[in-house]
Amino acid sequence: MTTSKELVSKFNDIVLTTYGPHQAFKQTACPMSCGADDLVFVFESSTAPHAAAVIVTCLQVAEQIKDWSNAFIVVVSDVRLAQAKIKQHFDDYKTHDLEWDAVHPSAVLHHTVKLGEGCRVGPNAVVGANCVFSENVTVRAGAIIEHGVVIGADSIINANVNIGYGSQLGQRVVVQAGATIGSEGYGFAADKQNHYHRVPHTGRVVLGNDVQVGANSCIDRGTYGDTSIAAGVKIDNLVHIAHNVEVGEDTMLTAQTVIAGSTKIGKRVIASGQTGVLDHLTIADDAILVHRCGVSDNITSGGMWAGSPAKPFKEFVRGLALHKKVAKLELQIKQLSKQFPVK
Amino acid sequence: MTTSKELVSKFNDIVLTTYGPHQAFKQTACPMSCGADDLVFVFESSTAPHAAAVIVTCLQVAEQIKDWSNAFIVVVSDVRLAQAKIKQHFDDYKTHDLEWDAVHPSAVLHHTVKLGEGCRVGPNAVVGANCVFSENVTVRAGAIIEHGVVIGADSIINANVNIGYGSQLGQRVVVQAGATIGSEGYGFAADKQNHYHRVPHTGRVVLGNDVQVGANSCIDRGTYGDTSIAAGVKIDNLVHIAHNVEVGEDTMLTAQTVIAGSTKIGKRVIASGQTGVLDHLTIADDAILVHRCGVSDNITSGGMWAGSPAKPFKEFVRGLALHKKVAKLELQIKQLSKQFPVK
Amino acid sequence: MTTSKELVSKFNDIVLTTYGPHQAFKQTACPMSCGADDLVFVFESSTAPHAAAVIVTCLQVAEQIKDWSNAFIVVVSDVRLAQAKIKQHFDDYKTHDLEWDAVHPSAVLHHTVKLGEGCRVGPNAVVGANCVFSENVTVRAGAIIEHGVVIGADSIINANVNIGYGSQLGQRVVVQAGATIGSEGYGFAADKQNHYHRVPHTGRVVLGNDVQVGANSCIDRGTYGDTSIAAGVKIDNLVHIAHNVEVGEDTMLTAQTVIAGSTKIGKRVIASGQTGVLDHLTIADDAILVHRCGVSDNITSGGMWAGSPAKPFKEFVRGLALHKKVAKLELQIKQLSKQFPVK
Repeated sequence: MTTSKELVSKFNDIVLTTYGPHQAFKQTACPMSCGADDLVFVFESSTAPHAAAVIVTCLQVAEQIKDWSNAFIVVVSDVRLAQAKIKQHFDDYKTHDLEWDAVHPSAVLHHTVKLGEGCRVGPNAVVGANCVFSENVTVRAGAIIEHGVVIGADSIINANVNIGYGSQLGQRVVVQAGATIGSEGYGFAADKQNHYHRVPHTGRVVLGNDVQVGANSCIDRGTYGDTSIAAGVKIDNLVHIAHNVEVGEDTMLTAQTVIAGSTKIGKRVIASGQTGVLDHLTIADDAILVHRCGVSDNITSGGMWAGSPAKPFKEFVRGLALHKKVAKLELQIKQLSKQFPVK
Repeated sequence: MTTSKELVSKFNDIVLTTYGPHQAFKQTACPMSCGADDLVFVFESSTAPHAAAVIVTCLQVAEQIKDWSNAFIVVVSDVRLAQAKIKQHFDDYKTHDLEWDAVHPSAVLHHTVKLGEGCRVGPNAVVGANCVFSENVTVRAGAIIEHGVVIGADSIINANVNIGYGSQLGQRVVVQAGATIGSEGYGFAADKQNHYHRVPHTGRVVLGNDVQVGANSCIDRGTYGDTSIAAGVKIDNLVHIAHNVEVGEDTMLTAQTVIAGSTKIGKRVIASGQTGVLDHLTIADDAILVHRCGVSDNITSGGMWAGSPAKPFKEFVRGLALHKKVAKLELQIKQLSKQFPVK
Repeated sequence: MTTSKELVSKFNDIVLTTYGPHQAFKQTACPMSCGADDLVFVFESSTAPHAAAVIVTCLQVAEQIKDWSNAFIVVVSDVRLAQAKIKQHFDDYKTHDLEWDAVHPSAVLHHTVKLGEGCRVGPNAVVGANCVFSENVTVRAGAIIEHGVVIGADSIINANVNIGYGSQLGQRVVVQAGATIGSEGYGFAADKQNHYHRVPHTGRVVLGNDVQVGANSCIDRGTYGDTSIAAGVKIDNLVHIAHNVEVGEDTMLTAQTVIAGSTKIGKRVIASGQTGVLDHLTIADDAILVHRCGVSDNITSGGMWAGSPAKPFKEFVRGLALHKKVAKLELQIKQLSKQFPVK
């Protein structure tokens, strides 16, 4: 059990005020199914539970529930951000506290590998020649790290990931299970018989600090230079990032997004699920690509874009109304034709 | 060789009648390329072969071919279902009869693992602490099962799958190669600098009886509670199911479908290839999503839906005709304008 | 260092002429960031660098740069093809020169496996019963090859790939990391309660010579016969090819393309990213599917097709202009109605 006093003390930089007597809690939980030992995060007063020990919420909700609630109420300005920070602190999966030895005897490490303090390598994982890991790097079971890979402190490589030779990963990088980083790019040259010959890809993949790569996603290596993913970028599952792509800081690429070769994605871009972006394009900072956006030309300003080919969101919405417009035109024409029959 | 007598005796609950003298067969085959030792399933009289030993078909086809065919003809009411059951019985891959030892010496099992009778664990597979497998569970080579996973009887985990800690799998579950189950969900909170902070996901993935998960598909764990896939759901390859999603019984999700976070999919829903469903939606039982449906609002009734944004199928088809309608309007306007020139 | 003399001598079949004094180079590089030791491929005169030792380019560019460039200039008719061949020769990743033993002691090989000369099997890889590999086959770490797989000479199976039992691979096949070949197809029969029963898939996957399969892509095995990928086909990352599909020679399937069951794709077809093709269709030779083509009917001739449902490219472009047409009609109607008010 943790006391709400400890909570307030640990997070006093984000606590605006509190209501009610102090309580103890065991874990975080969902407001819809919480019990008397739980800390919950409440976004709307309608979902505030009767049972929780501690409620973290905004000022407006707190005002509405403080009279009837028995919970210790912690007021913060950003409930979602508080949830991320508090849950990370009190109720995270202990990702570094595996059931296995620090370096499992079944793991295969080349004799030239350099491991920082606190590194863990799971059963049947493989780490190639000249890899260098900073402190507290975790490589889970079955992950294959090829030669010359450098990984920053506190990074986590999950099960069955493959990190291709020469890749550079920053600090606190998380690669979810089954992802493939540093596969050869899809670059070929056709001869006169239309047979394709591969262009060898000898560039690297470089991931900045705090990058997350989702399960079974793929990032191909560059042809000569780097495919580079800047700090803070969060990539969802089953995303494809082709050779030579550059992705700017704090961009989010949601599930099954495809970024084709050599395209430059700006900072703080958000691509929703199944977005597709063609090759050799530039996407402006702060662009938000929604409704399965199909981008076939440069996007020169931020804001929302939708549809395929991508257009500003307002134009996209107008396009959806085309059907109704045509129906109205048909009616008008019918009336006109009746009145003035074509001779 | 199996005799058609054995076949009829084994499946007498689905055999309506038979024609011709008994025959023996060696395996099942495709009508287009079968030989004299084969049992084939025939859906239309035009594809009935001259060479097969046994033909399983419906009454209508049987009436058309029984006079010229030398095969032993087995009449059933549902040929496709008969194919599933008969091929499973007489001509399936012996999934449990691997070339390897029951538990291969290279597999790594935590000392706390409990294996039911008849379980098999392939080479270089890893099974974590406190896992409990019922009888006849097969874990193929290179699969990584994290701690606390419970798997029901007769389930099959194929090569290089990752099952995250705490996942619960029912009986007769099949997870195809390379799938990732129980990866952390894509949930982040932005701070004022627009840096994203992960919300730890401590929920589980729960798969009901008879669920199938396709190759290289991903199912993320819930934030607090479960991502749950009900009994009988069949998921194709490269499908993404986000955190907190619930999928109802006997639903089919075809290749590259994306279901975003917290969405509830009904029972017996069919999503065709590359369907996308946004987050926090509800899809009614018996909805059929076709033509790369992009669902951005609740679907409140069954039947066919198509297009992006999703609309009832009839409306979608009307939308396709818009082009012709506009061409007709242009012609009418042209005629009117000619007759009554705008002054 | 390699001398440009060696280069010209090795590739004299493609060198049309040369300019300038011979030079030595160390590696290939990108024109935008090359140094004095580099060989670069230049496609346009505007990107010709001042620093490179050797420039490979076309006649037109050579004429424009030969007076000011200090590089040794090699003129070829197809710069892209020259890049593929020259980079393969002088600056490829030495895919067969791994840091590990030829057959790593941690790899598990069934005692019946037959390895040709020069084969390499990486750490923790698994090779099943009765597999037969020709010479110089490389199987990287963590790859799982099931029983009865035949692999032609000089093929490369990358990390964590799964090749299902009985698959047949030609020569010089490359399977990128995390791909799944020979998983069971998505074929089920519903009973009256709408429960699905799997149809066992006992066919194979057959890959011709020079096929490439991208990272985390999936190719399912046939129901009875083969899923077959002809010689020279290049498949990108995260592509799904269903059971019984046939793909013709030298076809390119770009990232996240889905080909549904039993469809026949012609020769030299190009499918751009996120293309979807429904089941049981035929796609003509030389068809080019662009703009996220959704193919729901046969494509009977080559040339460009776009949109969903797929239409000839010209028609697709006309469709995009529908919005403008309707706006024009609205204006015309407004004018007519003003002049001749509906009574």
